Amino acid sequence: MKNPGHLDIVGIGPGSPDHLTAAAAQALRRAEFVFGYQAYLDQVARRLRGKHVIPSQIGQEMERASQAIDLACAGHRVALVSGGDAGVYGMAGPVFEVLAARGWRPGQPPSVRLVPGVSAAQAAAAAVGAPLMQDYAVISLSDLLTPWEAIARRLEAAAGADFVIALYNPASGRRTWQLGAACEILLRHRRPDTPVALARDASRPTEQVTLTDLAHLAEAGADMRTTILIGSSQTFRVGPLLITPRGYEIPPRLLGSRPCLS
Amino acid sequence: MKNPGHLDIVGIGPGSPDHLTAAAAQALRRAEFVFGYQAYLDQVARRLRGKHVIPSQIGQEMERASQAIDLACAGHRVALVSGGDAGVYGMAGPVFEVLAARGWRPGQPPSVRLVPGVSAAQAAAAAVGAPLMQDYAVISLSDLLTPWEAIARRLEAAAGADFVIALYNPASGRRTWQLGAACEILLRHRRPDTPVALARDASRPTEQVTLTDLAHLAEAGADMRTTILIGSSQTFRVGPLLITPRGYEIPPRLLGSRPCLS
Repeated sequence: MKNPGHLDIVGIGPGSPDHLTAAAAQALRRAEFVFGYQAYLDQVARRLRGKHVIPSQIGQEMERASQAIDLACAGHRVALVSGGDAGVYGMAGPVFEVLAARGWRPGQPPSVRLVPGVSAAQAAAAAVGAPLMQDYAVISLSDLLTPWEAIARRLEAAAGADFVIALYNPASGRRTWQLGAACEILLRHRRPDTPVALARDASRPTEQVTLTDLAHLAEAGADMRTTILIGSSQTFRVGPLLITPRGYEIPPRLLGSRPCLS
Repeated sequence: MKNPGHLDIVGIGPGSPDHLTAAAAQALRRAEFVFGYQAYLDQVARRLRGKHVIPSQIGQEMERASQAIDLACAGHRVALVSGGDAGVYGMAGPVFEVLAARGWRPGQPPSVRLVPGVSAAQAAAAAVGAPLMQDYAVISLSDLLTPWEAIARRLEAAAGADFVIALYNPASGRRTWQLGAACEILLRHRRPDTPVALARDASRPTEQVTLTDLAHLAEAGADMRTTILIGSSQTFRVGPLLITPRGYEIPPRLLGSRPCLS
């Protein structure tokens, strides 16, 4: 009897192996075949010894999803790795879209599981303290797959309703005007001194965090490895940190003139 | 010389120990003192042997943050655990708020680090396929710390701009009308058949996923252990899954009449 194949779509976290979950590590351990962009395969290289590794180019999402499905259909254990959380702008979409278009229904082979991971926005937030303590919106500035009008409408809405905002894909070699256009929209609703953090390679040894404000964000040097966090009207800066208050009162007895009361 | 104390604010993930990151496990291993709600301490109980464990009640966020800071000030290694990601509506806020109010600046003792984790919304998304493949908004319906007007404005904005929406804290014993009010707002902008998933105890053995639509969400039995995912206008259902297309075309050669082409 043919083995029932299995496909894990694995979020391997934002970069540091420290942020890999136990479930992601286990999925990689069990896989015979591992698909992914070269950069993500490099991120988990030491876990791939003895496995069939199939690197793919950017822009081949549907091909990669389809190949991974076919190998699982043939009875293999397959892992498809995705940076951050595979469920956030990641490979979960292409896999389930191809499966759905082929008429697959859950319960039929192959079995498919999504293994979530720490996302780029969460790693960026961790690098700058506590920005995501209130409602937040996650917006990609890439207009390769989404019309700019839809992105602009979401920026407008998020700024107007005072969300903390996480921006993915703020710029690339070819996409150079989108961040400036986004800032113009945001500045219609938010103060120019709204605190902003740019986290490049968050959680990697090459991590670089830049603090600025909304008025200066467009010129702050964001690229495709940068995630941007824009505070709400309540977010404040303490040195290199961004803090969005939850709304609790701090009882005076917990305070004092020095950080260490005792 | 006195030890320089250290405080880790640790996101322990959505429930299953499988989703704990290596960094979170290490932070727990190194801690002498561990603070947290009892339910979160139970979640990592087997990692707490031989440590001083200090459970706290809900509603004591500032006290807990303050005690953890004081112990770190006294030279101890302290961990403060938070469900999901401590950086998303979690304990990172109270800690940095108390530190800031005491005049602390990064670089001064105690050293403080945020360890991110997989959030409840990500665990819910993983349970239902690929809902978060487009821009999304995360909104808490708890009006204990945030005025309802601010929440209503964010719901209106997120619905109008076609975000996928993740709702936290949809209901509790005392908060019973908020979800109905939210649905009314959302239905002004979204079709009643917009697909919706309710994930209760996502990733735990008690996980329960309910699929419904926006017209029936208010009566679907959400409680304080439920995270709700509401699709965008493009999200579609395949059995118990929600899929939001990324926008890629699927080349016809990748399709066929059966899920497993070969």
